[in-house]
Amino acid sequence: MSSVGTGLKGIVLDETRIAFIDGEAGKLVYRGYNIHDLAVHATFEEVSYLLLYGALPNREQLRDFDRQLKAGRTIPEPVIEIIQRMNAAHPMDVLRTACSAVVGLDENSREATVDVGLPVGIRLISQVATIVAAMHRIRQGLDPVSPREELSHAANFLYMLFGHEPTAEDAQIIDLDLVLHAEHSSNASTFAARVAAGTAADIGSCIVAAIATLKGPLHGGAAEAVQKTVEEIGDPQKAIDYIEEKIKAGEKVMGFGHRVYKNEDPRGSELRGVARELGHKRGNDQWFQILQEVERAMEPYRAKGIYPNVDFYAGAVYSLLGIPDEQFIPMFAVGRMPGWVAHVLEQYRDNVLIRPLLEYTGPRHLRWTPIDQRN
Amino acid sequence: MSSVGTGLKGIVLDETRIAFIDGEAGKLVYRGYNIHDLAVHATFEEVSYLLLYGALPNREQLRDFDRQLKAGRTIPEPVIEIIQRMNAAHPMDVLRTACSAVVGLDENSREATVDVGLPVGIRLISQVATIVAAMHRIRQGLDPVSPREELSHAANFLYMLFGHEPTAEDAQIIDLDLVLHAEHSSNASTFAARVAAGTAADIGSCIVAAIATLKGPLHGGAAEAVQKTVEEIGDPQKAIDYIEEKIKAGEKVMGFGHRVYKNEDPRGSELRGVARELGHKRGNDQWFQILQEVERAMEPYRAKGIYPNVDFYAGAVYSLLGIPDEQFIPMFAVGRMPGWVAHVLEQYRDNVLIRPLLEYTGPRHLRWTPIDQRN
Repeated sequence: MSSVGTGLKGIVLDETRIAFIDGEAGKLVYRGYNIHDLAVHATFEEVSYLLLYGALPNREQLRDFDRQLKAGRTIPEPVIEIIQRMNAAHPMDVLRTACSAVVGLDENSREATVDVGLPVGIRLISQVATIVAAMHRIRQGLDPVSPREELSHAANFLYMLFGHEPTAEDAQIIDLDLVLHAEHSSNASTFAARVAAGTAADIGSCIVAAIATLKGPLHGGAAEAVQKTVEEIGDPQKAIDYIEEKIKAGEKVMGFGHRVYKNEDPRGSELRGVARELGHKRGNDQWFQILQEVERAMEPYRAKGIYPNVDFYAGAVYSLLGIPDEQFIPMFAVGRMPGWVAHVLEQYRDNVLIRPLLEYTGPRHLRWTPIDQRN
Repeated sequence: MSSVGTGLKGIVLDETRIAFIDGEAGKLVYRGYNIHDLAVHATFEEVSYLLLYGALPNREQLRDFDRQLKAGRTIPEPVIEIIQRMNAAHPMDVLRTACSAVVGLDENSREATVDVGLPVGIRLISQVATIVAAMHRIRQGLDPVSPREELSHAANFLYMLFGHEPTAEDAQIIDLDLVLHAEHSSNASTFAARVAAGTAADIGSCIVAAIATLKGPLHGGAAEAVQKTVEEIGDPQKAIDYIEEKIKAGEKVMGFGHRVYKNEDPRGSELRGVARELGHKRGNDQWFQILQEVERAMEPYRAKGIYPNVDFYAGAVYSLLGIPDEQFIPMFAVGRMPGWVAHVLEQYRDNVLIRPLLEYTGPRHLRWTPIDQRN
């Protein structure tokens, strides 16, 4: 069987019970639950439990799970020092290095089994958030902020990022954003995690492979690129001309189109309303208006299945909350953690080495030439 | 198209001009040259050039390339400090973290192009060797040893590892070992590097994904497992009984069988002679005799295509040279570097996002239940 050069397009790796994407209908389901229901009703903690265990938690299960998440919020001192030493690097390089360190220093993380991987994975969901917050503080020349027990995952993350307790509204927006980013089937980073898991690598190594892959601008970098576009356009009036020029020049308009969705990305439509409201509250209607104008300019391409994706409104939301551009991809990682962990555990359950073939098209019988006889 | 649950077995990802494996014939070719010719004639530097540029270098090209490799042998002080802080972790965790740090601190490493990736990749071939040597020293409570300009890659590696200049024979053995490990088409770690490259991640991130994947015992861990088997057997007389018991118990005999080779692994036969001679010189014939007895006990399985692989003799060679078990997987990484780099660059040349599908088999229409109504 061959899919030469198409990036395994249309090839089915395996079965999954974690998420279902209906790209034609623009539908996303986590473990049977529609993303719109989860967006309205569920917290990030509930969604994480759902993704890891396959069912919604009852009150006691959620309490226990929440306790585990909270217990995982600290990171060891050597990891803080590593973040400090990496200050000159891109935030994703820092996150990748610090995550690699935190799992390396976790003595109980070695075996590639669900029993070992699950508690390590739960700890990592919290630790990745702490690493991102600590890195942001250190890059601002500030001290990292210790986590606060009584706050939710989202509220505590904002607290560690900014050093003061967030408003309930801001915490809810980040909670929703994390829910929307939590899982998306076999995207490139999740697939990389499963490839690592297939060799029976420990869950920490698998998450590092995912973070390394997420860094690519074709995967995690779109929200940042959209926000740069918004800033370049600067004025809603100029949006349509700007986009027309981009398209004439054959350039990609960032935040549009998706390998799977050929209809509206349901995560994008959830964030659209948030971006509008938040902008209005913060006295910045302009960014939303620019985004809306860009959407309008792109309307003719809907017929070709090109719609705004989740990244299109995410950048504006982050910026309005005071999160700098350079932290947009790390934010994606904070959200995607439960999905990555769920896929590694699913891979462990029925594990197999993942290794496609490459078809060799070069010469096969070259004769060795001594160095002085070479051209 | 579906290959559900078989780890993409038989699926062709893409074309390649880097290496050809004929598993039936037990044949391995790098860029047109048979591995046996390269084993006899080529140095690791020549093979690295061959893999990266597609042709053997003339004298001037080799001199320039060697100069680049040598210039890349140092690692920044913060990376040494990171290695020190990771002392309690598995060597592969240290290597993954230190490699992640070294590329993060390399300011010129960002773009996913051949022009940017090639010099960074050449530097990384050297830096990974330096990281492994420095880590070994630090774990022994010793100071890292600075590289020496006039030594070859292999000799300098042994020098940095042990703090004294190696004999010409020892340097030649490591040079051969690195040549044999340099490239092996789309194995799991190389595939992980290509998945990361497919998102346009920088070459450093791709190499980190490869190292994370190599750590898995089903991939990089076999040489270590073989050496443990040899030590457990302890006496050539006991080898056959030991293996028979293993097989009766349904356990895997490490160092045998390969997803691709259904005939002798040509790298294994190169290392067999080295292990025999080296053992004899070091007054340790026992290990080789044990390995030979194990091979004999496994002979009936040759009919099923199960032959010793490259890992089978590698562990004995490393041990006889004084390299401890825990550094066997890092040794594999030192050798595989040029192959990983070559594949990332090949992926960049005609890049596409690599993303297969997962087939969802779970429920699709569950109704949200408030927490107090859950079981």
